[in-house]
Amino acid sequence: MKAEIIAVGTELLMGQIVNTNAQYLARGLADIGVGVYFQTVVGDNASRIKEALRLAKSRVDLIICTGGLGPTQDDLTKDVLAEVLGQSLVIHQPSLDKMKTLFEGRGIPMVESNMRQALMLEHSDPLANDTGLAVGNAVTHEGTHYILLPGPPKEMKPMFDRYARPWIESKMDHVQPLYSLMLKFAGIGESSLEHALIDLIEAQSDPTIAPYAKEGEVAIRLTTRAASADEAAGRLKPLEQEIRSRLGEYIYAAEDISLEQHILQTLASQGKKLAVAESCSGGQLSDMLTSVPGSSDAFVGGIISYSNTAKHKLLKIPMEQLEGDGAPGAISEETAAAMAENVAELTGADYGVSITGVAGPGESEGKPIGLVYVGIARRGEKASVVKLQQSGNRETIKLRASKSSLYHLWKLLKS
Amino acid sequence: MKAEIIAVGTELLMGQIVNTNAQYLARGLADIGVGVYFQTVVGDNASRIKEALRLAKSRVDLIICTGGLGPTQDDLTKDVLAEVLGQSLVIHQPSLDKMKTLFEGRGIPMVESNMRQALMLEHSDPLANDTGLAVGNAVTHEGTHYILLPGPPKEMKPMFDRYARPWIESKMDHVQPLYSLMLKFAGIGESSLEHALIDLIEAQSDPTIAPYAKEGEVAIRLTTRAASADEAAGRLKPLEQEIRSRLGEYIYAAEDISLEQHILQTLASQGKKLAVAESCSGGQLSDMLTSVPGSSDAFVGGIISYSNTAKHKLLKIPMEQLEGDGAPGAISEETAAAMAENVAELTGADYGVSITGVAGPGESEGKPIGLVYVGIARRGEKASVVKLQQSGNRETIKLRASKSSLYHLWKLLKS
Repeated sequence: MKAEIIAVGTELLMGQIVNTNAQYLARGLADIGVGVYFQTVVGDNASRIKEALRLAKSRVDLIICTGGLGPTQDDLTKDVLAEVLGQSLVIHQPSLDKMKTLFEGRGIPMVESNMRQALMLEHSDPLANDTGLAVGNAVTHEGTHYILLPGPPKEMKPMFDRYARPWIESKMDHVQPLYSLMLKFAGIGESSLEHALIDLIEAQSDPTIAPYAKEGEVAIRLTTRAASADEAAGRLKPLEQEIRSRLGEYIYAAEDISLEQHILQTLASQGKKLAVAESCSGGQLSDMLTSVPGSSDAFVGGIISYSNTAKHKLLKIPMEQLEGDGAPGAISEETAAAMAENVAELTGADYGVSITGVAGPGESEGKPIGLVYVGIARRGEKASVVKLQQSGNRETIKLRASKSSLYHLWKLLKS
Repeated sequence: MKAEIIAVGTELLMGQIVNTNAQYLARGLADIGVGVYFQTVVGDNASRIKEALRLAKSRVDLIICTGGLGPTQDDLTKDVLAEVLGQSLVIHQPSLDKMKTLFEGRGIPMVESNMRQALMLEHSDPLANDTGLAVGNAVTHEGTHYILLPGPPKEMKPMFDRYARPWIESKMDHVQPLYSLMLKFAGIGESSLEHALIDLIEAQSDPTIAPYAKEGEVAIRLTTRAASADEAAGRLKPLEQEIRSRLGEYIYAAEDISLEQHILQTLASQGKKLAVAESCSGGQLSDMLTSVPGSSDAFVGGIISYSNTAKHKLLKIPMEQLEGDGAPGAISEETAAAMAENVAELTGADYGVSITGVAGPGESEGKPIGLVYVGIARRGEKASVVKLQQSGNRETIKLRASKSSLYHLWKLLKS
C-alpha cells in the first residue's frame, strides 16, 4: 500500500510550528508495512486542499490528512473532502454528546461552532478522539482510503495508534501482527555500525532491519510479521545472533532504553553509587543521568570543575599538577585520573567518572579542540583513563564526551 | 512571490528525521515577504523528484529544494533539476579546490564520488557552503526561480541566510532592506506576554510583531522594511518604547542572545565569577552556562548535590539540617540558602546560585512535585531565596528551575 500524508495548516506553512506529525505517521505506517511516498503541507485554503487531495488520489492508495478538524471557519478539511467525494456531513452523535457533557461539566456554554467538531462524512467510519473533541474519519471511496486526523499531536497520536492504524490494517490483505526487537549500541558510530551490517541491511526482506541514530546513540530495530510470538522469535533470533556475533561487544540492551538508564539500573540493582567530575562537558553528563526518573537511587552527584580553582578547591587536585612549567595540566591523563579517583573518595561513591578536555571554541593549554580524557575509577583504586579525539562543534564535543564516558563506565561494569 | 519548499530524502519520508528545514525556510521567507504555499517531501527517487518539480513549477514562482546534494548515488537533486531544465552539470572549481585542500589536510584520499558535491548547473549561480562540502545552486529558468540547498541543517541554515536569501531578494521588485529588533524577555511566560501586547499584535501592520517562545525563553521580534537604518529606527523605536513601557522590567536584551549568555557577559565585563549548586536541576544549569562559548571567563563550576550525602560532604551542609525530625530538609528555604552561600564560599566565586526542589516522578520529603527553591548569594552575604511552584513533567521542571534561577540572578545583577 502506498501512502501520502497531507498536513493542513497555515501555521505549518508559515513555519510557526514544525510538522512532527508527519514523522510520527511515517514511522507508524512503516511499522505496518505501508510506504509513504509523499508528504505535503497546504494552508487552510479550500481550493489548495482540494488540489492536494486530487493529486494524492492520482498517485497513492492511502491519504492521511492531519489538521483542519477544529471548530473555526479556517478548519476546512472535512468540508473539502465531503465535497470531493460528493458526500454530506452528518453529526456523529456520541462525539456531540461527549462535547455537551464536557461543556456542562465545566459550566460554560457550548458555542455553536464547536458542533462542527462532531461532524463526519455520511458514509465514513468515525475515529474516536480520546484526548480531544474533534472526531476523526476513515472512508474508502473508489478504491482510495482517506483518513482524517486532528492536528494537535496529543490528539493525533492516540487516534492514529488506537483507531486509524487498526482500520488501515483491516484494509490490508493477510496482515499478521508485528513483532520487533530493538538492539541498543554504545561505543560505535552510525557509519561503522552500518558498515559492519551492510550486507544484512541491503539484503533485508523479512525481518526488516532499521538503523536509528540520535544524540550520540545508535540502535537497530528488527521487525517481522508472524502468527505468534514463537514464530516471530524463530525469525528474529537468528538475525539477532548474527548481529551479536559481529557487534556483540557494543550491544548494551535488547530493549529501547538509553545507556544512562541502563547503567543507573545496573548500579541500583547492585546497590552501587556513582559520582561524576566534569570539566569540559560542563554538567551535561549529570544532566543526562538526572533526566532518568529514579536516578537518585544510584547517582550521588558530583563536581563541575570548570576552572582550575574548582579542580583545586572542590576536587583537591594540587595546583602544581594543573599549572606551571612541566605540569601535566588540567587536560591530561593525570588530571582525569585524579578527578575520577577524588570525586569517588570525596562523596563515598563506589564509582567515579571524570571528563576533562577541550570543547572549544579555542585551544586550551596548547591542546587541540576535541581532545578529551575520560577517567573511570572504583573508589580506593587507580582510575583507568581513555584518551579521545572528538570532532564537531562545542555542543557535539560535550555530548560525545558525555556519551563516551558512559560507554567506558559500562565496559567497566560489564567486566 | 509565491514559494514551495521541496524536501528530498527518503529518511524524511520514512520518519527517521523531522523536517525542521521547512520551518526554518518558511520563517526566513516570511521575513522577506515571500509566502510559502506548499511544502512537499519526496524520496530519493528521480521520477518522483521530477514530478514534484514540475508540479511546483505549475503553481509557484520560487522553488526551494533541500537535500540530495551529497556524494552518494542516492543524491539526485542536481541531476534531476539539470535534466528538467535541459542544462549540463559542471564543476564549481572553488568548491572542488576547497574539498581537495580539506582532504589533503586530513591526510585521507578523496573518493571520486565526493566530486559530485562540487557540481553545479551550467547556467546557475553557485551558493557557497561555509559549513560543508556540497555547493548550492540558484537559477532562474522560464520565469521560475530554483534554489538547491543541502539537507543537513548546519549547512542549510548558513547557506540560506548568507547567500540564498539575498539572491531571492535581488529577484524581488522594489524591495527595501529589512530591519529587525529582537527583544528578549525573562521571568514572563508566553501567554502573559501575548496578553500584555495583544492589542499591538492584532493591530500590527508595519512594523510586524512576532512573538517567539522556545525552551523557557520568550522573545519579540519587530521588523520593518526601510530605505535606511534611520528610517527603520523611526518606526521601530516608538513600538519598542511602547513595549518597554508595558513590560520593560522583563526585557534583558535588545539583541538575540540567551539569558545565560547575557549574564555571563555581564559578569565577565565586571571581572566577577559565578558558581552553582544544583540539586533537582541535576546539572542542567551548568550545562546551559557552559554551552556559551567563553563561559569559562565567568563560570567557575559548581556542585551537583543530588543526594544528601553530596549536600553534606561536598557542600558542607550539616546533616541535622537535611534529615531528622523537625529538620528543614533538603528541599527548603534554609538549604537553598546554605547551598548558594556555601558554593560561593567554597569556590571563592563572587556569586553563588542554588536550586533544590522536587522534579518528580514522585514526591520527596512529603513535598509536592514542582516545588523549587532558588537561592542567590553574594559571597560572604546571606542568600535570598525564592520559592517557586513549577508545573509540567520532570524535564520541564528541571528546565524551568534552571531558567528561573538565571532570571533571579539577573535581577540581582541589575539591582
